[in-house]
Amino acid sequence: MARELGKYEYETRTVAVVGAGPVGALAAIYFANRGWNVELYEARPDMRIAENKAKIQNRSINLALSARGLSALKSTGLGLDKYVLQSGLPMKGRMLHIGEKGKLVSQNYGVHGECINSVDRAKLNEDLITAAEKLPNVKVVFNHSLKRADFDKGTLHLENKETNQKVHATADLIIGCDGAYSSVRNSLMRHVRVDFEQNYLAHGYCELNIPAKINNKGEKEFAMDPHHLHIWPRHHFMMIALPNPDKTFTVTLFMPFENFESIHNKDDLLAFFRLHFADAIPLMGEEALARDYFRNPKGSLIRIKANPYHYKDRGIILGDAAHSMVPFYGQGMNCGFEDVEYLDRLLDEHEVMCVKPKNPNNNDLARALQAFTDRRAKDIQAICDLALYNYEEMRHGVTSPLYIMRKKVETALNLVLPKTVVPLYTMVSFSTRPYSRALEQHQRQGFWLAAAGISLSIGAVAGLAVVGLKHTRDLREAKDAVRASLETLARKVALKN
Amino acid sequence: MARELGKYEYETRTVAVVGAGPVGALAAIYFANRGWNVELYEARPDMRIAENKAKIQNRSINLALSARGLSALKSTGLGLDKYVLQSGLPMKGRMLHIGEKGKLVSQNYGVHGECINSVDRAKLNEDLITAAEKLPNVKVVFNHSLKRADFDKGTLHLENKETNQKVHATADLIIGCDGAYSSVRNSLMRHVRVDFEQNYLAHGYCELNIPAKINNKGEKEFAMDPHHLHIWPRHHFMMIALPNPDKTFTVTLFMPFENFESIHNKDDLLAFFRLHFADAIPLMGEEALARDYFRNPKGSLIRIKANPYHYKDRGIILGDAAHSMVPFYGQGMNCGFEDVEYLDRLLDEHEVMCVKPKNPNNNDLARALQAFTDRRAKDIQAICDLALYNYEEMRHGVTSPLYIMRKKVETALNLVLPKTVVPLYTMVSFSTRPYSRALEQHQRQGFWLAAAGISLSIGAVAGLAVVGLKHTRDLREAKDAVRASLETLARKVALKN
Repeated sequence: MARELGKYEYETRTVAVVGAGPVGALAAIYFANRGWNVELYEARPDMRIAENKAKIQNRSINLALSARGLSALKSTGLGLDKYVLQSGLPMKGRMLHIGEKGKLVSQNYGVHGECINSVDRAKLNEDLITAAEKLPNVKVVFNHSLKRADFDKGTLHLENKETNQKVHATADLIIGCDGAYSSVRNSLMRHVRVDFEQNYLAHGYCELNIPAKINNKGEKEFAMDPHHLHIWPRHHFMMIALPNPDKTFTVTLFMPFENFESIHNKDDLLAFFRLHFADAIPLMGEEALARDYFRNPKGSLIRIKANPYHYKDRGIILGDAAHSMVPFYGQGMNCGFEDVEYLDRLLDEHEVMCVKPKNPNNNDLARALQAFTDRRAKDIQAICDLALYNYEEMRHGVTSPLYIMRKKVETALNLVLPKTVVPLYTMVSFSTRPYSRALEQHQRQGFWLAAAGISLSIGAVAGLAVVGLKHTRDLREAKDAVRASLETLARKVALKN
Repeated sequence: MARELGKYEYETRTVAVVGAGPVGALAAIYFANRGWNVELYEARPDMRIAENKAKIQNRSINLALSARGLSALKSTGLGLDKYVLQSGLPMKGRMLHIGEKGKLVSQNYGVHGECINSVDRAKLNEDLITAAEKLPNVKVVFNHSLKRADFDKGTLHLENKETNQKVHATADLIIGCDGAYSSVRNSLMRHVRVDFEQNYLAHGYCELNIPAKINNKGEKEFAMDPHHLHIWPRHHFMMIALPNPDKTFTVTLFMPFENFESIHNKDDLLAFFRLHFADAIPLMGEEALARDYFRNPKGSLIRIKANPYHYKDRGIILGDAAHSMVPFYGQGMNCGFEDVEYLDRLLDEHEVMCVKPKNPNNNDLARALQAFTDRRAKDIQAICDLALYNYEEMRHGVTSPLYIMRKKVETALNLVLPKTVVPLYTMVSFSTRPYSRALEQHQRQGFWLAAAGISLSIGAVAGLAVVGLKHTRDLREAKDAVRASLETLARKVALKN
């Protein structure tokens, strides 16, 4: 397509986005908003058509949407954040099911009641595809899987899955949003020296279900508190549950593959559940539990790192194609959405227009993509590491007195020094502070808290912390007292070094 | 093929070896020796046919064959080690070209004059294919590239490169010897959770040439000493040269890609060579140097790690397909050959016969392949790490006084305590001690040498070392003295801990 601006005729840039999952659909919307011609290719059939739903092996049913994902949805200017939240379920904290009897302990995620949101992955994806499709410059093509891309020529070799025919397409820019086993990444690795790593956890997962219960009036209601992400932390393994709008919970059991392999029949399974998750059995029902457990696949957890993410001005990978992480920080999709927003800002920063530059030496787009590789890598590295670390925290750490104490102290300090001390979870899930800076600040705070444990009577801080927590009206006083303590600590630490 | 043994009829096992490089051809020979039916598939045409040679982009022209490779050749029982050495050129040490004038310094590889052998890669490969082909139970199939393998079904999906036809084959065991970008490995990764990593060095390489010179009698002769591997160590980069039977040297320049990219024309190139490799210019000739430099590709150096190497009793990867290493220890092919011999020993250990076991529960082959993954990984890891480390040593370490001193001390101690102190290079290149144990012993020795530096007068050891080196007839005396010193050291170290 050519367009006239003033007296010049310009050629509009075309981008081919491979993969119409949530990240790919969002990338299509962002590039359409920038005025590019967008072609969005998806290997699977259109999941919005009822008869196709049964064919599609969908990934986990719900996802935790938080600040970064919401920011990227909001920045589309289409009100997508608010629209998506309408059908999301806010979760204000973790509900731990402790011990054999499943004693309930609630731990808030945020200091000020912030929530993460359980959203239906399929619905979010469908909504984003529909939003993309409504834009005049987006063409969505289903049933086309990428075989390989030639970035230098800007050609995509696709296969029409319905006719088995080979199809060619061309684009100025090819974006791979095609997930952990990305074909675009495979092609990228033939164009540029990509450092690449994939690792599997020794743990796998199996999805189960807690149905809605029927109350006295014959209405469906949640079988557990729906405002929490439920966790059964069992040290070497764990089970979690997220609420769904239909009042059910999607349950996921994470444990070493050898444990899965040691359960051969219903008796083994029920004995295992009676020992570790006794309170969940009546909620699931023995029959349904056994049916789900033996029917559903035992999924594996892969971590993928790649670098660089781009090739010249011709291609880039985003989302899981660039960085598959384990799901324990609920940041996989949030990070993928943030990738899209991050790239969009870099296109602004490098003044990349939707029309090709007249001067071929002005490769604005190559510079923007290079900047993505240069500047985004450390954030991706940080969240991938944090996601792995959080598995340890969720299945074990949350139950340790030290963890609970640190959380309390950080929460209290955050109330009095809201910019200086911020709990890690808050920085990751309730802010858009770069992941790498969140991790750095967490490590600094850890040093201070450790130093506090050594150099000061921890009792003083803990006492203030409790004061800070329970009597926020005395905030100013507590603030001054904690500041004074920290200044003392700072002097002591300075003296020691 | 079925065979009768006693009153039973047995079915002979079939192995498909993918890739007829040196490692694949050797694997074919080993399995043929065990009585298996062997099919050896190679994507390229038969390189022994003259008209095909020009078509083939061969990898580096010569390789350093040492103890492990020779052991594996010898164990075929076909005299391949002696045959290959007939056309190999022994190199007894490194010849350093130091400083602008290229001052020559010889450093022996072994304590007792051991040599590594410069062999022609193409000839070695051709000889091994011919040796395999002569065995009655080996079928070599050229021009067939593997698209994918289904290990569960034991099927190979190949493409005949001459006719573009799809070809299917079946085998009980599929062995991938198809190099760094292995198709067998790609298929393996679809069957089992493979931890995989690939990294590129920021350095690349370019092959150059030093032609034979013509002496007074009109005969060709070597332009430099042919009994050495020549090195121009330049700290951040280096050049090396290995002798060829036709009296030429294959030269390889290793340096950061940014250095390659900063050389745009012949003037840049000659200025760079005059500054760093002045003594090499007259040997190469300015015209030929510039021609080779700008014509030959700038290769990249990739490291690949994978684990596991096998899938059940159905498939395994060996050689570069399992572990691409950088070339700086000259162990890539030696390690690949050792893989083959190692696997052969495990097949013996697990009593794997060439006929299928009558009892399907007796999965001897699965246990043998599992043992390869379990026991070989640490050796592969060790040599991959050593190979990378050796780049630092070759381009920089060899010139440092500390390195030279350690080498002298180790050499001297080795003469008096031949089992206790063995230089690392000797363990790696002149023994078949497992790589991981060689590395461990080297690290232990490093501790002792460091301890010696702290706890004893280094002068005493160094003095003894020189004595040990220069007057081997006084060996017994030196031996006793060093032993006494070491005992003193041992006591001191023991006291400290």
